[in-house]
Amino acid sequence: MAGNTFGKLFTITTFGESHGGMVGTVVDGCPPGIEISETDIQKELDRRKPGQSSITTPRKEEDEIEIMSGTFEGRTTGTPILLIAHNTDIRPEDYQEMKDVFRPGHADFTKKYGFRDWHGSGRASARETLARVAAGAIAKKYLKEKLGIEILSFVEQVGNLKTNVDFNKVTLEDIESNIIRCPDQKIAKEMIELIDSIRKDGDSIGGVIKGVIKNVPIGLGEPVFDKLNADLGKAMLSINAVKGFEIGSGFEGTKLKGSQHNDEFYLDEERQIRTKTNNAGGVLGGISSGETIYFRVAFKPVSTIRKQQKTVSIDAEEVNLQASGRHDPCVLPRAVPIIDAMAALVIMDHLLRHKAQNL
Amino acid sequence: MAGNTFGKLFTITTFGESHGGMVGTVVDGCPPGIEISETDIQKELDRRKPGQSSITTPRKEEDEIEIMSGTFEGRTTGTPILLIAHNTDIRPEDYQEMKDVFRPGHADFTKKYGFRDWHGSGRASARETLARVAAGAIAKKYLKEKLGIEILSFVEQVGNLKTNVDFNKVTLEDIESNIIRCPDQKIAKEMIELIDSIRKDGDSIGGVIKGVIKNVPIGLGEPVFDKLNADLGKAMLSINAVKGFEIGSGFEGTKLKGSQHNDEFYLDEERQIRTKTNNAGGVLGGISSGETIYFRVAFKPVSTIRKQQKTVSIDAEEVNLQASGRHDPCVLPRAVPIIDAMAALVIMDHLLRHKAQNL
Amino acid sequence: MAGNTFGKLFTITTFGESHGGMVGTVVDGCPPGIEISETDIQKELDRRKPGQSSITTPRKEEDEIEIMSGTFEGRTTGTPILLIAHNTDIRPEDYQEMKDVFRPGHADFTKKYGFRDWHGSGRASARETLARVAAGAIAKKYLKEKLGIEILSFVEQVGNLKTNVDFNKVTLEDIESNIIRCPDQKIAKEMIELIDSIRKDGDSIGGVIKGVIKNVPIGLGEPVFDKLNADLGKAMLSINAVKGFEIGSGFEGTKLKGSQHNDEFYLDEERQIRTKTNNAGGVLGGISSGETIYFRVAFKPVSTIRKQQKTVSIDAEEVNLQASGRHDPCVLPRAVPIIDAMAALVIMDHLLRHKAQNL
Amino acid sequence: MAGNTFGKLFTITTFGESHGGMVGTVVDGCPPGIEISETDIQKELDRRKPGQSSITTPRKEEDEIEIMSGTFEGRTTGTPILLIAHNTDIRPEDYQEMKDVFRPGHADFTKKYGFRDWHGSGRASARETLARVAAGAIAKKYLKEKLGIEILSFVEQVGNLKTNVDFNKVTLEDIESNIIRCPDQKIAKEMIELIDSIRKDGDSIGGVIKGVIKNVPIGLGEPVFDKLNADLGKAMLSINAVKGFEIGSGFEGTKLKGSQHNDEFYLDEERQIRTKTNNAGGVLGGISSGETIYFRVAFKPVSTIRKQQKTVSIDAEEVNLQASGRHDPCVLPRAVPIIDAMAALVIMDHLLRHKAQNL
Repeated sequence: MAGNTFGKLFTITTFGESHGGMVGTVVDGCPPGIEISETDIQKELDRRKPGQSSITTPRKEEDEIEIMSGTFEGRTTGTPILLIAHNTDIRPEDYQEMKDVFRPGHADFTKKYGFRDWHGSGRASARETLARVAAGAIAKKYLKEKLGIEILSFVEQVGNLKTNVDFNKVTLEDIESNIIRCPDQKIAKEMIELIDSIRKDGDSIGGVIKGVIKNVPIGLGEPVFDKLNADLGKAMLSINAVKGFEIGSGFEGTKLKGSQHNDEFYLDEERQIRTKTNNAGGVLGGISSGETIYFRVAFKPVSTIRKQQKTVSIDAEEVNLQASGRHDPCVLPRAVPIIDAMAALVIMDHLLRHKAQNL
Repeated sequence: MAGNTFGKLFTITTFGESHGGMVGTVVDGCPPGIEISETDIQKELDRRKPGQSSITTPRKEEDEIEIMSGTFEGRTTGTPILLIAHNTDIRPEDYQEMKDVFRPGHADFTKKYGFRDWHGSGRASARETLARVAAGAIAKKYLKEKLGIEILSFVEQVGNLKTNVDFNKVTLEDIESNIIRCPDQKIAKEMIELIDSIRKDGDSIGGVIKGVIKNVPIGLGEPVFDKLNADLGKAMLSINAVKGFEIGSGFEGTKLKGSQHNDEFYLDEERQIRTKTNNAGGVLGGISSGETIYFRVAFKPVSTIRKQQKTVSIDAEEVNLQASGRHDPCVLPRAVPIIDAMAALVIMDHLLRHKAQNL
Repeated sequence: MAGNTFGKLFTITTFGESHGGMVGTVVDGCPPGIEISETDIQKELDRRKPGQSSITTPRKEEDEIEIMSGTFEGRTTGTPILLIAHNTDIRPEDYQEMKDVFRPGHADFTKKYGFRDWHGSGRASARETLARVAAGAIAKKYLKEKLGIEILSFVEQVGNLKTNVDFNKVTLEDIESNIIRCPDQKIAKEMIELIDSIRKDGDSIGGVIKGVIKNVPIGLGEPVFDKLNADLGKAMLSINAVKGFEIGSGFEGTKLKGSQHNDEFYLDEERQIRTKTNNAGGVLGGISSGETIYFRVAFKPVSTIRKQQKTVSIDAEEVNLQASGRHDPCVLPRAVPIIDAMAALVIMDHLLRHKAQNL
Repeated sequence: MAGNTFGKLFTITTFGESHGGMVGTVVDGCPPGIEISETDIQKELDRRKPGQSSITTPRKEEDEIEIMSGTFEGRTTGTPILLIAHNTDIRPEDYQEMKDVFRPGHADFTKKYGFRDWHGSGRASARETLARVAAGAIAKKYLKEKLGIEILSFVEQVGNLKTNVDFNKVTLEDIESNIIRCPDQKIAKEMIELIDSIRKDGDSIGGVIKGVIKNVPIGLGEPVFDKLNADLGKAMLSINAVKGFEIGSGFEGTKLKGSQHNDEFYLDEERQIRTKTNNAGGVLGGISSGETIYFRVAFKPVSTIRKQQKTVSIDAEEVNLQASGRHDPCVLPRAVPIIDAMAALVIMDHLLRHKAQNL
C-alpha cells in the first residue's frame, strides 16, 4: 500500500500540497451512525490553525473544513468521508529565495521523486497535518461518546523549561487556558516569554508534548508487530519535526532495576485488579492494560529560521540563506491537536481490529 | 492485515509460541537470486541465542534454523521462504508457579484473546524475536552485498553506565569483542560486572542500544506516514521490553535552537553535498539523506525476576510471587542482533518500495 | 484495509455518492514525471458520461474532471493525485417513489450499514465508476507511452446479438465509430436497434464486453493468489451489474481435451518463442506470457426499469413499483471505458510490483 | 503485501514447493476459542489428496497435516496457526524430461523470477492448494458451528456432460457418494466413464464446478471494490487451471431483459422479505442478500498430458514432448474441496470485516 494511507481498518488517506488548491483526506472504514458535523471537526482544527496567537506563524489560514461525502442527515453512513480545506493565504513569493538552494533540515534535498518541489515543501509541508486533525476529530468524538475515552495531550517542555504537573489531573480547560497549551500556568508564562524572545531573534526552539489517553479498555493492541505502543510510536514519529517517542518510564526507566520498575498488581476498592504504579504507561506486552496511557513526543526546533545559515545551491555553490517565510518559532502549541488526533486514530483502528477478531 | 506480518513488500509473518514445537517465519516478496544458506542465518541467530555467556539466561536452546522452502540450489527463488527452529529446552514446570498469578510487567493480565496463556508467555514470549533475526539475516546480507549497507548496533548504556564512543568508528569486531556487545572495552567491563551483581541479586536492569546504519542511499522513506524514521521507530517499539525510540538528536535536541540544530550543507572534496553535523540522524523529512542513520532504543529492565513481588492471583487474592524461571538479568546483549534485524527489514522494505515507484 | 481502495502499489481510493456534491478518487503510488492533463483524463470520461447518445440515459452530467493535487507543471510528482468531478444534474424527486420500497436487483435491501440510502443508491451507484475511469486514464497513458501497451475493449454481445470479429484486428477507431462501441458495423446497427426498442418498452437488456490488452511484457502477475487473471477478474467483477468473467477459452474451453486446448510453443520469424493458438488468453499460471490478453465480462440487464414490477415496501407490504428515473436501457456502451480503466489499473499495479521484486 | 497472502483480516500465507520438503500455511487473525483438531482438517484434505480413486493421479501422498502453533488444549488461541504437510512421494526423475523444454500450458515459460523452476512447477504446482484446503477447513468449521453456514460445491459438468440437478437440494452425502463428486448419480457414472477413457488415451478433460453457500447472513461484502462476488471471483480465479467464474445468472443472464432478470421481492410465510427467483446468486450490489449464494467455476483441461505435443526447448529448438509424470486426467473431483475452502475463506474474512465496522 502506498505511503499516504494510515491505519488498517479505520484508514485515512491524505492528499494535497501547501501550494496547491486544497488539502484533505478520505476516511474509510468509519462505523455508520456517528453524529458528526463540520463544527465538531472545526473545533479541533482551530487548535491547529496558523495565526491563532502571537507565538505562532502570522500566516492566516482559516482552514475551513468541508464534509463532501460519507454522511447523510448529519450521521456517518459507513462509506468514505471526504474532508477538504481550501488553501487561501498562499504567497509563492515567500519561497522564491529558496528556489535555488537546499534548506538545512528539510527534505527537499533528498529529491525523493527525482525533482525538487520547493514551493512550501510540497507534501513534506506540515499543512498535511490539517487532514490528520480533521480525520482524528471523528475518531476522537466516537471514542469519547461510545467508550468515554479522553485524549488530553499538552506541552510539557519547551527548550529547557519543563512542567512537572501530574498528568492524571490535567483537564482540557487547563490545557486551553493559555496559548502554549501547557496546563501549568506558571511554566506556561515562562514558555511564552521564551518563544517570544526566540521569535524576535529569528530563531526557533524545540520541546516535548505529553500524550495522555484515559479510559482505554483492556485488550487493545496486538502481541507482536502491531503492539499498541509500536503503532502509537509510528503515528507520532510520522509527524513533522518529531525525533523521539517514549512510553511510560521511557528512557529514564532504563536506569531502574526490575524490582523498582515492575508495576505491582493489587485489588482496588471495587476488587478490580489495578497496578499501584504505572511505569508501563498503560500498555503491557503491547496490549492496553486499562491504566492511563501516557507517552512523550520530542519535537526538534523548526528548521526554517530567519537567521542566516550556510548551505549549498542547486548549482553546487556554497551560499548563505536567510529565509523570510512566515514560520512558527515553536510548533508545540499547534502540534498538541495533532498528537491528540494521531492517538485517536490509533486507538480507533485497534478498537475495530479487536472487535473483528474477538467480539 | 492481521498483526503477525511486518513490512509491505518484503514481508515477514512470524508464528510459534515458546511452549510449542517450533517458532519461525515466512519471508515473502524476497528478490530472487540471493545466495543464502543456513550458515548465513545461523551466524546472526547465535548472537541472539540464550546461554551464550555468563550474563544471559542459562537456558540452552541451539536455535538451529532450517530453510524449508523458497530457495533452489542455494539461492532465493522469489517465492516464500519458510524458516523454522524447533524448541528444545522447554521446562513447563518453570511456569507452574506462575499458572495462577498475574506476573507484574507481563501481558498475560490483559487476556487479549479471552484466556490466559501462562506457558512461557505464549506469543508475547521474546522467543518470537528469533524469527525476526532469521528473516533479517537475509535482508542484511542482501543490503550489504548489493549496496554496501552496514548495520552495526551496539549496547550504549546499561543502568547508569554509558559509553560515549564515536559510533562512526565502531566495527563489528569491536562490538563482538565482549559478551555485553559494547564497543568501549572499559565501560563494557563495568557493565558486565554490574549485570553480574544484578543477576546474583535475582534482579534485572535496563539499558539503551544504539542503532547504526551506514551507506543507505538517498531517497528511501515516504514523505508522510511511512517516514523512514516512523517505520524504524515502529520496528523497534515492537520489540519486547522497548519503551522508547529516538533518532538523531532525539530528546536532547528539543532543548536546542534551530540555528544550533540545523545541519548545514557543504560540498565535500568530491563536490558531493553533505552535512557538517548530523543532528537529523540521517533522515530529512522522513527520507534518507545519505548520512549515517543512527537512533537509540530504550529497554526497560526484564519483568521476570527472582526477587519477591506483590501481585494478585487469578482468584483475586493478593499474593507474593517469586519466579524461578531461567531469565536474563539484562536483555541488551541478546537484543543487539534483533535491532540489527529489524533495521535491515525496514531498509529492505523501503528499498523495494522506492524501486517500485521510482526506478 | 477498508473496501474503497483498489490496488497494492498503484492504489485508488474512491469517494462520493450520486446524491452528494462530488465523486472522485485519490491516486497514490503513481510514478513521478508522467505528463498528464485534465484533457487526457476527460477524453476517457467522455466515453463513460451519461447523455452521450440516444441509447444511453438522458441524464446530462458533464463529468468535468479537476486535478486538485499531485501534479506540478503538468507532470505527476509521485504524491497523491486528487481527482474530483462535481455532480450537476441531480433530481432527488426521481428517487422519491423508491423511498419506501425495495427495488428488485438493488443493494439497498441489504441495509449493509444499518440504514437505507435510497437517494440514487448511495455508494452502490454506478456514478462511482467515473472515478475509476479518471484514475485509469493515468495508468492507461503511462502504459501506452512507456511500454506500448494498448487496451482496446469493445461490446461483443447485446442480448442474443453477438459479433465474431477478430479482436486482434480491432482498432480504437473501429470501436468508436458507432454509439454502441461494437467494431462490427453490421452487428452494431442491429444492437442499436434492439436497445432502442428495449428502451421504448421501458425495459433493459444485458450483454458482454470483450476486454483486450496488447503488448503486456512477459512476467507480470504472481504465481499464487495474485495471479494476473485473478486480479483482472476481481477488477471486472467489482463493476456494477457484472455477473461473470472468463479469460481465454473460458467456459467453452472446459469442453476441450488437453491435447486440443494446450497452446503449442513455436519459434517465430525472429526466433522468439510464441504460441500458435492463445486459448490461455495471454496468461500462463497466473503470469503474462507475452501473448495478447483477452477476456469476456458479462453484464446483467440494468435493474431499474420503467416496467411495473412486484416488490415489498419498507413497511412490509407487497406493492407494485414503476420507476421513472432516467436510466440506461443497456449499460454496455458506457461500460467499455470502465473495463479499459480497470484493466489499466491492474496491469499498472502488477508492473510496479514486478519492478519492486525483480528489477 | 506480497502475493502469497490471501484475505484482509482472516489471512492465510502459504509456502512450499512440490519438490521441497513441505507445503503449508500460516493462518492469522483467527478468532480465539474455536475447537479444531488435525482430524477436522484431515477430513477435508482427504477429499483433495492424490491417489484417492481410479480417476485421479496415481501419485500417493498422504498429505498428513500437523498443527504446529496457534492452538492450546484443542482450541485456537487467536495467534498464528501454522499448518504443515510433508511431501513424501516425490519422483524428481518424472520431471527430467521436462527439464529442457517449455511445457505447453504451463507457467515455467514466463520465467517470472529470472530462472526456470522445472521440478514439478515450483510454486505454480497445484500442491499449494493443499494449504488452502487446510486453512479453509478451520473457517468452514467456524462458519458451520457459529452461523449454520453450509458450503456444498460439486461437479456440474465434465466435457460435454452436464447435470441439471437442483443445487438447493444437494447434500454432502449426495456429493460424496461417487468418486467424481457429482450428486447426479446417472451423470456421475457417465462422467467417470468419460474420464476413464480420456485417461487411457493419455489426454485430459475440463469441466465446471458449481459452488454453493447456504445461510450466509444479510450484509456481508463491501459496496465498491470488495464486493462479495468480486472477492469470491478472485478466490476462484486464483486456483490453478481456472479460466472463468460466473455468479447467479452469469453469462446466460446477459441475454435476458431486466423485467425477466430482476428477482422480485415478496413476503414469505414468516413475513421475511425474500426473492421469488435468485438470478442474483445471493448477492445484490456486492452484498449478501440472505438467499443462497451460487456460482460456477470453469476448469480448463489439465495441461500435462501423455500425448505427444510440439513445443520449444530452452535452447530454442522446436521439439516434441511426451510427458510421463503421474497426472490427473481431470482435476474436477479433487478441486471440489478447494472451491469449498476458498469460499469459506472469503466468507470468513468478510464476516470479520463486517463485525469490525458494523457491530
